[in-house]
Amino acid sequence: MRKCHIMTLDAQPLQTIRWCGELDGYVELIDQTLLPVEFKMIECRDVECIWNAIKRLSVRGAPAIGVAAAMGVVLGVRNVDGDRAMFLAKLKEVSEYLASSRPTAVNLFWAIDRMNRVANETSTSDCAAIKERLLQEAKAIRDEDAAMCRAIGKFGSALIPDGAGILTHCNAGGLATAEFGTALAPIYVAHAEGRTVKVYADETRPLLQGSRLTAWELDRAGVDVTVLCDNMAASVMQQGLIDLVITGADRIAANGDVANKIGTYGLAVLANAHQIPFYVAAPSSTFDLDTPCGADIPIEMRSEDEVRHGFGLQTAPDNVKCHCPAFDVTPARLVTAMITERGIIKPVSQETIAKTLA
Amino acid sequence: MRKCHIMTLDAQPLQTIRWCGELDGYVELIDQTLLPVEFKMIECRDVECIWNAIKRLSVRGAPAIGVAAAMGVVLGVRNVDGDRAMFLAKLKEVSEYLASSRPTAVNLFWAIDRMNRVANETSTSDCAAIKERLLQEAKAIRDEDAAMCRAIGKFGSALIPDGAGILTHCNAGGLATAEFGTALAPIYVAHAEGRTVKVYADETRPLLQGSRLTAWELDRAGVDVTVLCDNMAASVMQQGLIDLVITGADRIAANGDVANKIGTYGLAVLANAHQIPFYVAAPSSTFDLDTPCGADIPIEMRSEDEVRHGFGLQTAPDNVKCHCPAFDVTPARLVTAMITERGIIKPVSQETIAKTLA
Repeated sequence: MRKCHIMTLDAQPLQTIRWCGELDGYVELIDQTLLPVEFKMIECRDVECIWNAIKRLSVRGAPAIGVAAAMGVVLGVRNVDGDRAMFLAKLKEVSEYLASSRPTAVNLFWAIDRMNRVANETSTSDCAAIKERLLQEAKAIRDEDAAMCRAIGKFGSALIPDGAGILTHCNAGGLATAEFGTALAPIYVAHAEGRTVKVYADETRPLLQGSRLTAWELDRAGVDVTVLCDNMAASVMQQGLIDLVITGADRIAANGDVANKIGTYGLAVLANAHQIPFYVAAPSSTFDLDTPCGADIPIEMRSEDEVRHGFGLQTAPDNVKCHCPAFDVTPARLVTAMITERGIIKPVSQETIAKTLA
Repeated sequence: MRKCHIMTLDAQPLQTIRWCGELDGYVELIDQTLLPVEFKMIECRDVECIWNAIKRLSVRGAPAIGVAAAMGVVLGVRNVDGDRAMFLAKLKEVSEYLASSRPTAVNLFWAIDRMNRVANETSTSDCAAIKERLLQEAKAIRDEDAAMCRAIGKFGSALIPDGAGILTHCNAGGLATAEFGTALAPIYVAHAEGRTVKVYADETRPLLQGSRLTAWELDRAGVDVTVLCDNMAASVMQQGLIDLVITGADRIAANGDVANKIGTYGLAVLANAHQIPFYVAAPSSTFDLDTPCGADIPIEMRSEDEVRHGFGLQTAPDNVKCHCPAFDVTPARLVTAMITERGIIKPVSQETIAKTLA
């Protein structure tokens, strides 16, 4: 295990991705494909390295991908010389290249668009100044994401009593963002404030983000964490081990219905049956007020091979169908409260959401 | 894939284990460790081969293990010559050896005890006659198991409407018994009677008996089957794809509480929340009337490595705890009906159970 030469593993929050140094510096990111077996940083000094990191899922999670793309833009243009027109042409080329790394990632396009807008709005013809402005913007995207996570952590930690047993699903943690995460941020804050928490992490089939990533980052931070198979969640609830459930969200409709990693809906039903609060932590950017309700959210179906060959070994017969939805939809009525960077939404309704986001 | 030279794969019910020929014959059993990738029969001509098959989990499922042990006893003593006392001494030795193959398997001891009782109750001093009697008994144990499964199938199939979507968990199928299984028997009968059924098989972490075994045997029998990860069950219920759930049982308390493979309880809660009938199929031998309720059933905790290294690859960090209960307990109130070889128990209560088993 190669330790990052800058990060202090023990005390600092996980820095999934960051820019080291000045304009001639480099991007440092965690290679998530090697976790949980190996913790290794990748140093990216050119845009191709960032493209590969996004493509190979070394960096994943919508906010983290956005940060990587913004920093990739800087790497792609920092050595460009010539006039403003030439610079902007090269910026466009680099942007299109980066956008091809993961064509369905919304945050990727959002970050690239923001970087392009900043460059185009900069009136100077001094390329060196535009480059500095782009680096500032990339760092700002990272810092805004970290600040958003910290705000969610602060608001959400108030919901976590000392000694709480907390169930979470998938990885809405520091590894998916610049720092701290969304669903895990309240846990980190409660832990930092000295409260004892006991986290149960669903392994989260088929891609095991829970056992590979959530368990790894919580353990690294000194938080007590236990991995369980997804089908054990009901049993630990029945035994009284769970005081609250926190998950992230991929998209939240105007009425509060939540699309999130497959398995979230089942947890919400189980939490409801056991009278356990069910919280969703997400930034305001996850709310899609143009989508009236969950039924309007399209659910991506993924390759059957993620179920059939999920771990390298074949675990289902060749000719048998495998069901592999990426997400499910949890109706708003099952969500006790939502934790955003603007505060807690409770109860969850079209009105309370609109009010908080206004 | 080596085809068995006797079994017709297409038309016949799955014969997980059977005795081929007369006393000088052999035991043929499916090597379940190779499924779903390879279908291969093991021919056992000595008791060591049976011992290994049980130990290696080539044969698994309580009823199937019982049949294997009974046939193993025959293989172990069929070449013994000498007087009755010598024969019975050798029988005892063989029995103790077989019992050491899987020390927690109740049906293993039950079958071995039954074979010993038969030998001891046979008054003849003609060893050849005792051997024939033992072979008859082993075949009878197999045939009784097959008949039990068929009776469960007959009663249970009445609960399956044409066009039904059926969710099942783990493998309570032909591979766990001599033929047909318990939870899967009603499905096989409904299918044989020409009803259309669509089965959803939970993959059943950590050991994946659903995707490896249930999917394989249903597909082989021509039943429409789709594998899903355990955390997708709620989603397919929400979509209206499931009309009923059927699982097996490892032990049923006097009040109707059911201990079964981890994940069963969660399915029962989800089925209840979606107003979907939840059925448990089990022979009368699974009822333990000396155990008043589910809280009295001890839950076996298994190795953390089944979660951490379940598929050959490491999927959770070394130093993180993994939770691995083998079973959970479903309260009787969540069970719509029980399907036994003596008929349907509905509603499920101490009184209705006692009446059916009387």
